[in-house]
Amino acid sequence: YLRAAMEELYPADISSILYELDTEPAHYLFSLLTTEIGAEILANIDEDDRRRFLQDFSSVEIARYIEVFDSDDAVDLLKEQPIQIREEVIGLLQDREQARFIIDLLPYDEDVAGGLMQKELVKANANWTVNECIEEIRKQAEDVEKVYAVYVVDDEQTLLGLISLKNLVLARKNTKIGNIFDEDIHYVETYRPVEEVTEIMQRYDLEAIPVVNVQKRLLGRITIDDILDVVTEKAEEDIQAISGITGEVEEDDSLWDQVKARLPWLIVGVIGSLMAATVIRFFEGELTKIAALAMFIPIMGSTGGNVGIQTASLIVQALADKTGLEISWKERLLKIVAIASLNGLIIGILAGVYVLIFSETQLFWVVSLSLLAVVLLASFMGTVTPLILNRFGINPAVASGPFITTANDLVGIGTYFMIAHFLLKI
Amino acid sequence: YLRAAMEELYPADISSILYELDTEPAHYLFSLLTTEIGAEILANIDEDDRRRFLQDFSSVEIARYIEVFDSDDAVDLLKEQPIQIREEVIGLLQDREQARFIIDLLPYDEDVAGGLMQKELVKANANWTVNECIEEIRKQAEDVEKVYAVYVVDDEQTLLGLISLKNLVLARKNTKIGNIFDEDIHYVETYRPVEEVTEIMQRYDLEAIPVVNVQKRLLGRITIDDILDVVTEKAEEDIQAISGITGEVEEDDSLWDQVKARLPWLIVGVIGSLMAATVIRFFEGELTKIAALAMFIPIMGSTGGNVGIQTASLIVQALADKTGLEISWKERLLKIVAIASLNGLIIGILAGVYVLIFSETQLFWVVSLSLLAVVLLASFMGTVTPLILNRFGINPAVASGPFITTANDLVGIGTYFMIAHFLLKI
Ligand SMILES: [Mg+2]
Ligand SMILES: [Mg+2]
Ligand SMILES: [Mg+2]
Ligand SMILES: [Mg+2]
Ligand SMILES: [Mg+2]
Ligand SMILES: [Mg+2]
Ligand SMILES: [Mg+2]
Ligand SMILES: [Mg+2]
Ligand SMILES: [Mg+2]
Ligand SMILES: [Mg+2]
Ligand SMILES: [Mg+2]
Ligand SMILES: [Mg+2]
Ligand SMILES: [Mg+2]
Repeated sequence: YLRAAMEELYPADISSILYELDTEPAHYLFSLLTTEIGAEILANIDEDDRRRFLQDFSSVEIARYIEVFDSDDAVDLLKEQPIQIREEVIGLLQDREQARFIIDLLPYDEDVAGGLMQKELVKANANWTVNECIEEIRKQAEDVEKVYAVYVVDDEQTLLGLISLKNLVLARKNTKIGNIFDEDIHYVETYRPVEEVTEIMQRYDLEAIPVVNVQKRLLGRITIDDILDVVTEKAEEDIQAISGITGEVEEDDSLWDQVKARLPWLIVGVIGSLMAATVIRFFEGELTKIAALAMFIPIMGSTGGNVGIQTASLIVQALADKTGLEISWKERLLKIVAIASLNGLIIGILAGVYVLIFSETQLFWVVSLSLLAVVLLASFMGTVTPLILNRFGINPAVASGPFITTANDLVGIGTYFMIAHFLLKI
Repeated sequence: YLRAAMEELYPADISSILYELDTEPAHYLFSLLTTEIGAEILANIDEDDRRRFLQDFSSVEIARYIEVFDSDDAVDLLKEQPIQIREEVIGLLQDREQARFIIDLLPYDEDVAGGLMQKELVKANANWTVNECIEEIRKQAEDVEKVYAVYVVDDEQTLLGLISLKNLVLARKNTKIGNIFDEDIHYVETYRPVEEVTEIMQRYDLEAIPVVNVQKRLLGRITIDDILDVVTEKAEEDIQAISGITGEVEEDDSLWDQVKARLPWLIVGVIGSLMAATVIRFFEGELTKIAALAMFIPIMGSTGGNVGIQTASLIVQALADKTGLEISWKERLLKIVAIASLNGLIIGILAGVYVLIFSETQLFWVVSLSLLAVVLLASFMGTVTPLILNRFGINPAVASGPFITTANDLVGIGTYFMIAHFLLKI
């Protein structure tokens, strides 16, 4: 009865139900499903949920599902498993083509085109007819779920072009493929970074892109659904980096996972703040004479942090878009100085008015000038930090997070006390 | 010569070149292009660049390009123009079907399915044969660039299902569509929020989804390339909201645009910090007696801010994923309290050690307990704020930005001085 009820549902909906259950009933329900539906669910759930779920599965059971996976998803799943299980599963596969596909795909890193591609595609020799092409699609129909286009190759499997399914439908049945295919197409080499693939597919509105080796031999293709997943994941990663969360956690992850993800950046923040405390301690003499100096410690820290994050975030975005980065260093710095001066002036005047209202008149110039200096310094650091991180291959989004806040807290407070020290001559 | 050189390039590459030029040479180069390539470029450039670029174009010129646009892109462009030009252009269109398409699409908001759909699609009556279907594709070939599937409707244009292009290729030519189409398909109503459309298409790996009205009449379809653009844009928006930048700016936007985008949240930050200054002023008596109290102002502010952002960011992510939000309020609060206590204890001990090393022993309990309290309060605020903003229809990502830092700076510093006041009995 359960089985019948579940066969009415979409795989993606069944997996939502499985999430709600404990391990044992979830395994039981899962075992009632057909291999196809089970495979579809396994292919689409979250990486760490999947690893956990498969923990008590034998290699034989895993192989049963891998058999019907798309090759790209099969490799993703197997890479999460211990090497022993991975090798066992590959050895157990009945479909030797699938085994070969997997072995071909295993070497690629997940951040290059080769790590996203699937081997399932339909290709045709340039001297075939339209009819032969259609017969090839029929043969592969079960293995290649989405076709989009037939890739045209020569006898050495060199990619020559493609013919879209639409044009294939419209072509006469005995026309030679060689006469009607499109030569002017986009393709990527296996080593291209994923971001480049994404940019090309988004720019030219492609639903699939063929992947070739350096000799332009056709090796596989990347489909848009996987690109959409990459883009979504990258966005989540960036936001976590900005928010000072390390690793991928979700709100429903375990207590310990969450503490682990949050603690590192909190500790960096604490260390930065304790360094700020040491700076303040150094100026304790000034503070004892003018206790009101303490009032403006928060504004120096938070303004520095806010300006730094704004600036860094725009640079990170420009790095991602590759827009605007053509302008020269001198131009960019000049512009940043101009923006910072304007913002710094306005903020300085605002805070200055507050100082006058609360009649801490002696601090007017100290507070206003310090704020201007803090905004300028923070803008500079917000510009330079992501560029440096990016140069060293670190996700520059980290620079828009606690790192920049902490650094600017420190610099802001130091600047403030130094200016106070010199202006007040205490 | 220039024209020939440019015809070698992809439209997306030509637009990169146009970006580099001043207005006049850009217009000149653009006028050399064929209408098709010009239209393709106009359809894909940034909204505000396009508005600027089209400023000196007459309605007649705009109409020339709109003529060959996809209907969804045509509506997007026309919505950026003043109403007068919009109406003139529609009136000038030679292709009356295109004019009708545009008039149909104009009423929809850009954040619902109707605002993303295009009218271009291939549909077939259930009692047609495969061959008639193919003839329909041939008729529409020029207008519908990507086909993917033929939508099957009855005489009232009610959506019954679809037949994928792949199955159409494989079917016998005289088979009735009614016997072979897929009934079990995904579709959306025009009023569905864009996020729901995105989720469905991503979940089920769709490259296009039909859009219907409440009576299930087929009105249009949404293609995956536009969804990818939506996802990218939403990610950029979230990051800007988090970074305290209002509106959409890019690093290469004008000085004034940038100042305008940054200033509002900076001022919110300044106001918050000046409120913190007022709190500190209130405790000036304590500060005069124990100047060392000032040392720990930064750690209270920045720890509160960092914890608040981490918490808010995970809640925002959970809101977007719709994961984990099924757990009850009580459970969630308990978990957050547990995580916060653990983090707060560790941070409290760290700072406590610092206090002892610098032998401000009298502050040991004040600093440690305040930090624990600050982490707890910030976690609570980080949880509640995005949920409240979301309830009021404001982008909850705003809560992971300067808003939460500012609020937590204030609360953190207030808590600290209150605890100091009571523990030190001064
Ligand atoms: Mg993959
Ligand atoms: Mg296979
Ligand atoms: Mg696009
Ligand atoms: Mg498009
Ligand atoms: Mg795939
Ligand atoms: Mg997880
Ligand atoms: Mg659109
Ligand atoms: Mg048209
Ligand atoms: Mg998917
Ligand atoms: Mg898939
Ligand atoms: Mg479109
Ligand atoms: Mg812009
Ligand atoms: Mg701060």
